[in-house]
Amino acid sequence: MLRNMTNPLRNTATARLSALANQLVPTSQPIVASNTLSYQPATFPTNSSFSHPPQRYQQHNQQQHPSRSYSTMSQANQAAHPLTMIPGPIEFDDEVLAAMSHPAVPHTSPTFIKIFQESLQLLRKLFFSTDPNAQPFILAGSGTIGWDVVGANLIEAGDAALVLNTGYFSDSFADALEVYGAKVDNLKGPQIGSKPSLEQIEAALKAKTYKIITITHVDTSTGVLSDVEAISKLVKSVSPQTLVVVDGVCSVAVEPIKFDDWKVDFVLTGSQKGLATPSGLSVLFASAQALDVVKNRKSPSGSYFASIPRWLPIMQAYESGKGAYFATPAVQNVYALLASLRQFATSSEQLEERFAKHAATSDYVKDTLAKAGLKTVSVDRESSAHGMTAVYLPEGISNADLLPLVLKKNVALAGGIHKEIVSKYFRVGHMGISATTPSLGHIDTALNAILEALKELGYTY
Amino acid sequence: MLRNMTNPLRNTATARLSALANQLVPTSQPIVASNTLSYQPATFPTNSSFSHPPQRYQQHNQQQHPSRSYSTMSQANQAAHPLTMIPGPIEFDDEVLAAMSHPAVPHTSPTFIKIFQESLQLLRKLFFSTDPNAQPFILAGSGTIGWDVVGANLIEAGDAALVLNTGYFSDSFADALEVYGAKVDNLKGPQIGSKPSLEQIEAALKAKTYKIITITHVDTSTGVLSDVEAISKLVKSVSPQTLVVVDGVCSVAVEPIKFDDWKVDFVLTGSQKGLATPSGLSVLFASAQALDVVKNRKSPSGSYFASIPRWLPIMQAYESGKGAYFATPAVQNVYALLASLRQFATSSEQLEERFAKHAATSDYVKDTLAKAGLKTVSVDRESSAHGMTAVYLPEGISNADLLPLVLKKNVALAGGIHKEIVSKYFRVGHMGISATTPSLGHIDTALNAILEALKELGYTY
Repeated sequence: MLRNMTNPLRNTATARLSALANQLVPTSQPIVASNTLSYQPATFPTNSSFSHPPQRYQQHNQQQHPSRSYSTMSQANQAAHPLTMIPGPIEFDDEVLAAMSHPAVPHTSPTFIKIFQESLQLLRKLFFSTDPNAQPFILAGSGTIGWDVVGANLIEAGDAALVLNTGYFSDSFADALEVYGAKVDNLKGPQIGSKPSLEQIEAALKAKTYKIITITHVDTSTGVLSDVEAISKLVKSVSPQTLVVVDGVCSVAVEPIKFDDWKVDFVLTGSQKGLATPSGLSVLFASAQALDVVKNRKSPSGSYFASIPRWLPIMQAYESGKGAYFATPAVQNVYALLASLRQFATSSEQLEERFAKHAATSDYVKDTLAKAGLKTVSVDRESSAHGMTAVYLPEGISNADLLPLVLKKNVALAGGIHKEIVSKYFRVGHMGISATTPSLGHIDTALNAILEALKELGYTY
Repeated sequence: MLRNMTNPLRNTATARLSALANQLVPTSQPIVASNTLSYQPATFPTNSSFSHPPQRYQQHNQQQHPSRSYSTMSQANQAAHPLTMIPGPIEFDDEVLAAMSHPAVPHTSPTFIKIFQESLQLLRKLFFSTDPNAQPFILAGSGTIGWDVVGANLIEAGDAALVLNTGYFSDSFADALEVYGAKVDNLKGPQIGSKPSLEQIEAALKAKTYKIITITHVDTSTGVLSDVEAISKLVKSVSPQTLVVVDGVCSVAVEPIKFDDWKVDFVLTGSQKGLATPSGLSVLFASAQALDVVKNRKSPSGSYFASIPRWLPIMQAYESGKGAYFATPAVQNVYALLASLRQFATSSEQLEERFAKHAATSDYVKDTLAKAGLKTVSVDRESSAHGMTAVYLPEGISNADLLPLVLKKNVALAGGIHKEIVSKYFRVGHMGISATTPSLGHIDTALNAILEALKELGYTY
């Protein structure tokens, strides 16, 4: 292992990396407040004028939520901890975490109905949707349950599904659909890190009638970003009856999804990535066309808990301000989701600001890593996610070398998960407050930790 | 409505209720510290030597958990709020709520693996199980997902299921099993509030071979308690291949379940009742026999997310101290579950104390209501749950009269949910700290609120 070698190149490598660090001083880079890449631990200020103790959340919540800028996001109430810079779960704002400690409230009480109602209403804004016949859903569960909801409700045994496959999570989505009887065709790009072309997709849609097409908006295993707008519009022009289903687990609230305009039929996501809320919620958005398909099924829904027919009246009731019961929602997690949505989903402008901040941070991360000679798994910038980066390890350095060393520098990264390249790359998350609030120092801390650790491992380029 | 009447009986009623209240002074009742039934708001002390601020939970957690008695349970960190005295979600201890605000931690990090591992280990203690081939599971989701896990894994299309039906939740469990192809026979007692007899069950088991028998340990719609021990032992003597499946949503951690001794095969529950943790977790426990049935299925599991074959290696990995990934667990909710389990599930003695406290509180609640002339839905004390009470409304008083009036006295109760008697009864929860820690005053506050409200509505008996 390089770590244990007395490497004659190390001094040279150190000198080169120092030179690189100097080149990288982001003098005109607005997204990162820190003006050096010298290693700085994440800041955990002990006081913040905005933060409030968690136990007072309920009272706070009864007031109008104050307008809040990203610069006031805070972790002042949190114990010092290694930065979670994986592609979800991510670092949380104090206010969101505080909402997780909301005292007991009955799940069908007027108090909680208002919270659930506002959460559903803000999900409509999040997806830029004004169609009253589209419907948001919030279920207790992992994001993965969204795949069951798709399989159990939009698929009947023998239905054809076209899976646009950009990595491990596309494979898994296909597996989930097959549990519910789908006949799956996978469409891939020419290599790992690429995506199928619009020409491939058009040809596939013309060759066969598909009940659904699935797009993994960002495949968390590769960091590949798909062009949902172009694909969805293509589908609706070539095969309008095919439902466009978007796995937005690693994209929602980081990448824009203009649900109505793009004619998307279904989006599924989890709470712990772009939604910047602890894991434990499955968030879904269904078009009128998708709900019609469910309504006109020949066979009943293939799941009890993941049944759209069972949840639809519940969500409609909550959204209209009435209580209804099918299964107990994750009350505290919904409070946290609402606290987060209020921070960024109350208007289009707020959302566009959020997307722009994520894009700028992503460019900064990718530029910095590229200048250090590191290659992303995604083949080009246009195919790259804005909330995470999958990075090939330099030759001779393994995750077993790198990740523990980075963790010693207070930063947790994720290893690989794509089966064919699992040991060859690592993943960095840059979503939520880490991406939007440079004063917290998360991004520079993570980049510095990576570059310093590589240097210590003798990396040069 | 009685509320709006100038009722000549009211003065008499008041006098009688006052006399009743005097009779009820629980002079030798150890479970309730308060020695009068005069109305007292719930206490929310502003200071407690044990409580600690939520934001320091992580540090606290790294230390050995101190031994803690029920008398130190506290809500000092919580904003004043109406008491949630419904049969789940319930009132929470500060320490459990604080754990919900745990800062971000990667779901496969050594830090979180230890938390998940200890949670699984304590679930074994909770179920008095030492069989290494039995397996606890913790999934993100509502308790309801447990029904899908049973249906999708223990049932194959056409399998016969015997549902011991004691109310609305037994009906729903049957519905869930039918989604997965079960042929369900329901066995009921002679009236609402009763349960099928052992003789009925034995006859049914002898008449037909059932793949599974389901017992709703406590049906939350009726408050009926079933005798899991007697039924399970009967099943294993009459039809040993039949799997004994217990819906423990409203019983686990309130009523004892001696999993190995009683030869139970599967228990499912949610986090928000006896486990005294916010809603959002599905907790399961499977016997070696149940896992063998899953392993030997002819068809694949009928669900993707609710698949035992997919989760089993994950739970085994976490429990043995290694990370594994299938779907992201609800990290913060698991921290909260562990905080709660540490309070009562570290030893048999601790558990027996918890059950005894719930039983004593339940007797006190039921005695008090009986002395006020109110009837429970459950037909006798032996068939009555210890964590909740379903109570018939007095003639002429509706939930629309009673519940808002009780809520004005700072206590939230639940209405009816059993379809045939929905408007005729209400439900009171008495689980967790409300039952174990009389110094918090929850039980007396709730009982006083009910009795005072009835008095104001002109009730006499």
